[in-house]
Formats: sequence, structure tokens, C-alpha cells
Amino acid sequence: SNKKLLVLPGDGIGPEVVGETLRIVDWMAKKRSVSFDIEEGLVGGAAYDAHGTALTDETMTDATHADAVLFGAVGGPKYDDLPFELKPERGLLRLRKEMDLFANLRPAMVFPSMVENSSLKPELVSGLDIMILRELTGGVYFCEPRGIEDLPDGSKRGFDTQAYTTPEIERIGRVAFDLARKRRGKVTSVEKANVMMSGVLWRQVMTALHASEGEGLEYENMFADNCAMQLVRTPKQFDVIVTDNLFGDILSDCAAMLTGSLGMLPSASLGAEDPTTGKRHALYEPVHGSAPDIAGKGMANPIAEMLSFAMLLRYSFDMGEDADLLEKAIDNVLAGGMRTADIMATGKAKVSTATMTDSILKELDKL
Amino acid sequence: SNKKLLVLPGDGIGPEVVGETLRIVDWMAKKRSVSFDIEEGLVGGAAYDAHGTALTDETMTDATHADAVLFGAVGGPKYDDLPFELKPERGLLRLRKEMDLFANLRPAMVFPSMVENSSLKPELVSGLDIMILRELTGGVYFCEPRGIEDLPDGSKRGFDTQAYTTPEIERIGRVAFDLARKRRGKVTSVEKANVMMSGVLWRQVMTALHASEGEGLEYENMFADNCAMQLVRTPKQFDVIVTDNLFGDILSDCAAMLTGSLGMLPSASLGAEDPTTGKRHALYEPVHGSAPDIAGKGMANPIAEMLSFAMLLRYSFDMGEDADLLEKAIDNVLAGGMRTADIMATGKAKVSTATMTDSILKELDKL
Ligand SMILES: CC(C)[C@H](C(=O)O)[C@@H](O)C(=O)O
Ligand SMILES: CC(C)[C@H](C(=O)O)[C@@H](O)C(=O)O
Repeated sequence: SNKKLLVLPGDGIGPEVVGETLRIVDWMAKKRSVSFDIEEGLVGGAAYDAHGTALTDETMTDATHADAVLFGAVGGPKYDDLPFELKPERGLLRLRKEMDLFANLRPAMVFPSMVENSSLKPELVSGLDIMILRELTGGVYFCEPRGIEDLPDGSKRGFDTQAYTTPEIERIGRVAFDLARKRRGKVTSVEKANVMMSGVLWRQVMTALHASEGEGLEYENMFADNCAMQLVRTPKQFDVIVTDNLFGDILSDCAAMLTGSLGMLPSASLGAEDPTTGKRHALYEPVHGSAPDIAGKGMANPIAEMLSFAMLLRYSFDMGEDADLLEKAIDNVLAGGMRTADIMATGKAKVSTATMTDSILKELDKL
Repeated sequence: SNKKLLVLPGDGIGPEVVGETLRIVDWMAKKRSVSFDIEEGLVGGAAYDAHGTALTDETMTDATHADAVLFGAVGGPKYDDLPFELKPERGLLRLRKEMDLFANLRPAMVFPSMVENSSLKPELVSGLDIMILRELTGGVYFCEPRGIEDLPDGSKRGFDTQAYTTPEIERIGRVAFDLARKRRGKVTSVEKANVMMSGVLWRQVMTALHASEGEGLEYENMFADNCAMQLVRTPKQFDVIVTDNLFGDILSDCAAMLTGSLGMLPSASLGAEDPTTGKRHALYEPVHGSAPDIAGKGMANPIAEMLSFAMLLRYSFDMGEDADLLEKAIDNVLAGGMRTADIMATGKAKVSTATMTDSILKELDKL
């Protein structure tokens, strides 16, 4: 096959949800003749246990040579006391940085059969469908200088640098405008331009980009604190929210939790398109974490990982039909009342991770 | 009187809500013989219009000489295109920094008669009472270097510095532990120690401080993104949340909106106690902003400003009884069904800013 997939299950429930998703991949190969060339690798705590680092150079190279990476989750209490540079998260952050995955797409949507799972009142979230676009390779996550220094008086000072350049802002802005054109045509750009100089530049560049390249799109600037409020107050006012790495981390988690379907939200992290080959680096991962407390118990919800695979089909291989099929099967199973523990509600049927997959496969056979 | 109050109404609805609150101050003087020595000053856009700066040196000096500052709100679209250093917000930020108001107390509570106003389901927020303690004089809000520089290729780079020192973290940590002792005994310290070096130091110092000075208190570390999620999912799990300036800005606004009573939430910003006089600088302000869209229409909710004044009585003058009285009067009026537009609900009586105050004064007369 010319479709090279690198699978990185990681830690906690990562291996379980990736394992279940590979059953879907198998089904696609058998029933739809969609075959992938699959390699597996270690990342996070699993890589640390085996190699003393959260990501080996070899796996890093495999990732850059793959057409797409399917990622599980990293981290766990076992690794809490490791020094910063060895922590499981460093593996994920290195992948993002070295593959230059600057555009992180985090849809926050409420599945019709799951409106009641939200902590918000049903009328506020029913039909909710927001796209949070988070810049993923810049800002305080990666800028230098950073460190912990000793002060003359014997105390310490921990410091980080938050910075953005014009081209970094423009390239994520263009992705936001492209996304909005395929959606409801509205972009909200979020920063703290009243407090941060990187925010002042962000607002200037985005506003200018909208004027020059955003024809026909509705556009607004919003402060990050206000955005957090508005997400809780009336989330349906938003279409595409574009923001930096740190604000995106917090706001996308807030938005994800609003939906009440955290265990079902996928994400895609995309690099720039190569102008000659038309290819781009890409990594797909669920929004949820490694959930060490339920790992190995057969309780995890595999749907976020499966929907990440659906995004992979759509964004990396232009296989929209296959992605639709998988999403439809999942929808039907949920509508039928099956629930893993995290999304259980009265009147529904609680099932294990494997049973959820069984049902989705059966549904795929029927479609 | 030996109680010197500086009143800074500011912009938008600031002058209205401060004006109504001064009617309460008058009542206190007449009926409770509590008299203040009141001066007024300009801040924000109002100061810029009069003097070309968001805060004059003279007003700055008045603030440091006052026993307490009662602040309204700043900002408005009229000032959107001013350069960074002249913006209304700079006045507020200068006050915080030069008065060294490092401890920002932002209670997020749901008033019993207002449970239905929350966007969250009633059972999740009924009885909610969290204290967000935000560090207010450090971090990315004030650290140097910061700026926008020209790059060799003609593009620009906006940059900020995020930093915290051991003593800065310890002093806000001590306030958190003190607050928790008077509340439900639980402290959640929030950072991104998995990503930021300032966060690594923050977690180390807080954890050590808890071990040495936090006896009897429950303590946990939490990542900022997870905290945003948990606030939406089960806000009642928290008692005191202590965090840095930027995370505090976002998380406190998120928590405020959860209550559904944004127009009713006060805040206190406190300096260190002078070891000889026992006095400390203090500024009190509502959590809501200047709301330029409803300014001058007699629609604003004056309660957040009045409750800020109640905090002023309690924290700056140890006048807990008078504070209780005012809070009780407000509670009773709300329980009686009166609502300003922002908190209006079916079956309640919609009233103007002034009528709300009239009713609170009448209630005070009765108590
Ligand atoms: C694991 C962690 C480093 C990561 C982040 O902060 O980006 C996670 O929270 C996420 O949002 O993907
Ligand atoms: C007005 C603005 C500078 C301020 C802040 O960011 O601190 C405000 O949002 C607040 O929370 O008091």
C-alpha cells in the first residue's frame, strides 16, 4: 500500500483505544479494500520504560516518513517525578514541533443522542458544532529563553518566553479562514492584546489578514478571558475560534467539556502542504488524556480514537466517503443506546470498550 | 474620619454602579455613623480624555495614600485604536502594580435565588462557593523583556516574558492557605508544569509550602487545561483555587460565568500587610467590565459594585457586621424577585439600576 500509517498507542488507555480502532482499520481493509501499511512505535511513558526517553530518534524519523500518525495518549502518575525533559508529554511535544504540525483542529460538537450528557442546559448545547483551531508549534510551549535560574538571594526564578512572528500568525490565520469557508463563515480570533505584546501583534496581523484574504467572512477579535465566559454562556455564537498554543490548550478543553462528550472528541494536527507533492505531515489524536485510573479495565471509550481515525481518512487521504461511513456507524450505535461508562446515562445500556467496537463493526457490516 | 476612600468610577457603567454604591455609603454614614473621607479620581478612558493618560501620577499617589480604593470599570470601543500604553486598561494595571496588590480574591458563588440563571444544570451549581485566588502583580502581565521587534526579513515578532520567583509564589501560597483555613480546607494549585518552566517552579514551591505550612489542609496540583474542564464538569469539587496572573484571568472569568450571576460578583485586590501599622493597600472592583453597550441607560446591575464595597468593609476596615448587613439586604431584595436586565428571569420583576438601589436602601432601613 502507498498509505503509510504510524501507530503510537502510548500510555494508559491509549493502547486500548488504539487497539479497538485498529479493528476498524482491519474491517476497512477487508470490506472496503482500503489497505494501510501499518507500523507501530512507542511514545510517552511506554517509550521511557523501554528506552529512557519519551520518543526515540528512530520513532521520530518514522513519524516524518509516515503519511499519517495515529496517536493514543501519554502520561500517568508513574512518571510524575521524572525530570521535565524525560516526562511522557515531551514525546508528544517533540512530534508536534519536529513535524511542524502548526494547525491543531479541535472540533467541539454535541452528538444528538448525547445532549443530556452536557453539564449545560440542553437548549444551550443542542446542535453545538464549534471548531477550535489552535496554533500548535509556537508560543510559550517552545520559545526560548526558558529555564529556572538561581537568584543572588538564594531563591529561584522560573521563566518562559511567549512569542509569535507575523508568518506564524498568518499561516494559522489562513487555515482558520479556509475552515470557516467550509463551515458557517465566522472566525473569532482570541488573544490578550490588552496585556501581551504577542497579543497586540496577533490582533494586528489577523485583522489585516481578514481585510486582505477574508472576503465574505464574518470576523471578530476577542480577549481570552471573555472567550472563556462566552463559551460557557452561549457557545453556539461561535463557528471557528483561532488562537495561540496556550489559550488554545485551555479553551479547547473548556469547549470539549461543554459538549459532555469528551470521550468522543477527535483532533487533527496538520503541517503545511508541500507545494510539489501536495502532502503534509499529520497526527491524529483524541482530545481526552491517558486516564490512568481506568486503564486496563476494559472501560475506556474508543470513540474519540475512532473519530480521530475518521479525520485521518478525510484530511490525509481524502477518503471522505469512508470517514462518513464510520461516523454514521458510530452515530447509529449511540442512537441505539449503547454507552461506555464515561457517557452512561439512565435508560442506556452500559458496555465495555470491546463490546462498543463489536457493535460498531456490526453496524458497519449493515451500512 | 480616619477612613480614607479613593473612588475611581472609570468608564462605561462604572460611574453608574459606583454612584449607586455611594448611596449605600451615605446610608452607612447617616444610619450607622460609619463615615468615610471620600475622594474621587479619574481612571481609564475618562482619565485619558481629561489628561491624555489612563492614570495620572497624582491619582496614583492618592491611591497609595488611601486606606482603600473603590474601583468601577475601564474601557470602551472609543479607545480601541489607542496605542497599547495609552489604553484604559493601563490605568488599572498600573494601580495593581504600584500598590503591589498581589492577591486578587475572586469569589464565585451562586446566590440561592439565582440558581436558574446559570447555564449549568441547577444541581451542578446550587450552593456553589469557590474562591479563585489570582496572583496579580507578576507573570506575563508585567515581566520584561516584552515588545514587538522587526525581523531581518521585514516581518515582526511580538514577545512577552512569563516568570515567577520563589518569594512571589510563596506569598500568594500563604494567602491561599489562610483563606482555605477559614473555608472548607482545600487548596488546588493550578499551572502548566508539564509545559512551562515557571509552572515547574510554581508546582515545586507550592508543594513544599503545603508540606511546611499547610498542616491540616487538603492540597492538589492541577494543570490549567484540566482545571477549565473540571470547572465546567463539577465546579463544587473546588474550595480555593490558587493560580498565576494569566490563568487566573481566564479561569476566574470562566468560574464567574458558571454562576450565572456575573453582574453580582465582587473582587478584592490586596497588598501585603505592613508589619508595623497592620495596614495594607487594597482595591475593590466588580468582576464584570465596563459594558459600554448598556452604559448610560439605567440598566446596569449595581450589586457587584455594592458587594465589592462589602468586601472593602470586611477586609480593609474589619467591619464584618456592616458588610453582613449590606449582603443580607441584597439577598432579601433578590429573594423578593427584583432583577436588573442582566439577571432577569420569568416571573421576576425587571427594575432599573436606581430602583434596585432604592429597594436595597429600603431593605437596609428595615433590617
Ligand atoms: C499533554 C500536554 C502537553 C498537552 C498540551 O498541553 O498541549 C495536552 O494538554 C493537549 O492539549 O494536547
Ligand atoms: C482589563 C484587563 C486588563 C483585566 C485583566 O486582564 O486582568 C481584566 O480582564 C480583569 O480580569 O481584571
